[in-house]
Amino acid sequence: MFKSNRSRLQQLIEQFSQFGATVNGGVTRLSLSKEDVLGRDYFCEICKELGMDIQIDDMANIYATLPGKKDCQPIVIGSHLDSVEKGGRFDGVLGILTGIEAIRTLKENAVELEVPLMLVNFTNEEGARFDPAMMSSGVLASKFSKEKMLKSLDKNSITFQEALQASGYEGEQGSRLTDALAYIELHIEQGPVLAEMQRDIGVVEGVLGMVCYEITVTGESNHAGTTPMSMRKDPMIVASRLISSLHEQLGKIDEELVFTFGRMHVAPNIHTVIPNEVVFSMDSRHQNPDVMRKVEKLLTGLTKEENGCHIRPVKLWGRETVFFDVAICNEVEKSCHELGYSFHRMFSGAGHDAQYIASFIPSAMIFVPSINGKSHCEEEETTFEDCAKGADVLLETVLTLQKKFSMGGKYTLNQ
Amino acid sequence: MFKSNRSRLQQLIEQFSQFGATVNGGVTRLSLSKEDVLGRDYFCEICKELGMDIQIDDMANIYATLPGKKDCQPIVIGSHLDSVEKGGRFDGVLGILTGIEAIRTLKENAVELEVPLMLVNFTNEEGARFDPAMMSSGVLASKFSKEKMLKSLDKNSITFQEALQASGYEGEQGSRLTDALAYIELHIEQGPVLAEMQRDIGVVEGVLGMVCYEITVTGESNHAGTTPMSMRKDPMIVASRLISSLHEQLGKIDEELVFTFGRMHVAPNIHTVIPNEVVFSMDSRHQNPDVMRKVEKLLTGLTKEENGCHIRPVKLWGRETVFFDVAICNEVEKSCHELGYSFHRMFSGAGHDAQYIASFIPSAMIFVPSINGKSHCEEEETTFEDCAKGADVLLETVLTLQKKFSMGGKYTLNQ
Repeated sequence: MFKSNRSRLQQLIEQFSQFGATVNGGVTRLSLSKEDVLGRDYFCEICKELGMDIQIDDMANIYATLPGKKDCQPIVIGSHLDSVEKGGRFDGVLGILTGIEAIRTLKENAVELEVPLMLVNFTNEEGARFDPAMMSSGVLASKFSKEKMLKSLDKNSITFQEALQASGYEGEQGSRLTDALAYIELHIEQGPVLAEMQRDIGVVEGVLGMVCYEITVTGESNHAGTTPMSMRKDPMIVASRLISSLHEQLGKIDEELVFTFGRMHVAPNIHTVIPNEVVFSMDSRHQNPDVMRKVEKLLTGLTKEENGCHIRPVKLWGRETVFFDVAICNEVEKSCHELGYSFHRMFSGAGHDAQYIASFIPSAMIFVPSINGKSHCEEEETTFEDCAKGADVLLETVLTLQKKFSMGGKYTLNQ
Repeated sequence: MFKSNRSRLQQLIEQFSQFGATVNGGVTRLSLSKEDVLGRDYFCEICKELGMDIQIDDMANIYATLPGKKDCQPIVIGSHLDSVEKGGRFDGVLGILTGIEAIRTLKENAVELEVPLMLVNFTNEEGARFDPAMMSSGVLASKFSKEKMLKSLDKNSITFQEALQASGYEGEQGSRLTDALAYIELHIEQGPVLAEMQRDIGVVEGVLGMVCYEITVTGESNHAGTTPMSMRKDPMIVASRLISSLHEQLGKIDEELVFTFGRMHVAPNIHTVIPNEVVFSMDSRHQNPDVMRKVEKLLTGLTKEENGCHIRPVKLWGRETVFFDVAICNEVEKSCHELGYSFHRMFSGAGHDAQYIASFIPSAMIFVPSINGKSHCEEEETTFEDCAKGADVLLETVLTLQKKFSMGGKYTLNQ
């Protein structure tokens, strides 16, 4: 059993947080930006120093492989170096850096793995520069068409294709990840659960299914001063009641269900005018498809007319719950036991590359606590000790897996 | 008793609706714009033809005076030729055009008034180009400082002063309206009450008092997928409940009270993020100051904290109810009786130049019905018959007033 080098990992995290550092201690490292390319260059440099072989595919995903005793499929550790605008120092990059620290620990202990170990940096996970999020893992999993992705525009009307070519990181389609023994992704939780429960590690069993609805309430605009209350068709009143009522009813379905009315647009949005339209979003997530069906039933069963206003719910999108490989999850849990770290089996409410990779490689994720549950902001924080514990669990899990694989063990897709 | 010429008035309304005509049958005649100047020019031309004397003051207000037998203070008919962006063909301009029709009717019947009759076009009533609304009547009433007004910017960063100078309608401060026997303003109702009640004329007793509050609900942004419901501080939920609850409580105060939550801003307004702030407006109006005090008590007495969110109501502004001159209102009512027109005594929920002029001249207003209560939009509509009835009441009231004045009658400021 090995433990990672705390100060070395901290130093590495601090080094990477310089690429796109913001004045308030966060990072802006948009995919394929100058800052992202600096991070990529440094990542490649470190991997080469560690004797790893670098391959780059046509989506600019970087694969760094440490050879094993056997020349076979690798175990893959993956994550992303890109961030959102004014994001934090841990989201994404930590999955890469704990992978580097794991390999450094192996090297200094002269451990040679039975099978190859590959580190992957996925391009444009955040979707902050180019829509959609998890673009490149989505292309690998055939969820997205590469041709469409190449046309995705950033806010300066630069296409993903142009950014790809300009980055110097456009490789060959033949280099794409198509198979592996196992895929593991370490990430910050981005929620408050582990911190609140005072657990060291999240053993992530999958990614929550979700639906996103947009509810449009249409009424009639009139002058705020001259229209008696009884003659109004006010969508703001109807929308407010609807949100209150949905909040109450959704809350009764299941205590683990989460739902959010995050976006609202009011038209014409003038204080002296009764609105004619209020549009709001409802994002809801749960691991159990039966629970999600109840959510959808509630939304689609909404009354169509209230106080003279029309109510129209439209499903914008949804995703099924992704279940990770149970056997690998159990190995992660065993690693926690071995290391004496407390853990919690949980689902991820946020999306990750792992959810697409899981469709063709047995996968699992490891979460480390997020202080106050903050992410996608400069205040995002995880203690270096927790980062190191994550690296320990990652390494321990890789060590167990490579041993099992070398003995002919197999992990199957548990979808 | 005279009646206006229906087809002549209709023709005049249609002529004026050409100045700034929009493709959908409305008008865009922003104050001191090219279109407004065309309307002003035509107004002056008509008045000169009618033998009226034209004066212009330093705020570009136009005064056209028809001499009376006595050289004394005039009776004033006032309104505005400017419109909002994509406004209607009646708002404002109708008050001027019914005045012209009244004078034309006097002329063709060879009636010479005992006292002068003045028509006034007030500059920038709408405030659609230059903030604030009712700018020039406000300056006349010393509610606004002229120096500040001159610096008011339109969306192209042109100052009111520059527009004033460019218009060719900048006159002398000495020409300002400072006193008169009475002030009457005819306007479309801009609400659905007269149409709903099937009344011909609104006898306007004043302008409703109002308050405008902005309520800020502050919570905490977190990831919509990873934050359990029990750990959220969601201002959207709190704001929705607050609007529902305020709607219920305000509705109990008085059935004539109107209140509107017309504007809402959500931050960051992303469907996958729990908002950290929801800000909404509450505009409320009623003629009775006691009722308005109850509204304010409710707002200022709101709980400061709910479900982990802070609630902060801020009063943006308010105005006291303006009461028009009861004696003049009674004369308007009597004119309706004389003419056999149905009427309804009511308050204006919208602001008008009359509310400022009433502070130094005994004033009243006459409303004509708005179909579906629509205004400030291209669908704004009043039947030509209703416009003509308004012109009849206006003329009849002027005739009664001038007779009383010539016999030494007096109307006092009823504030």
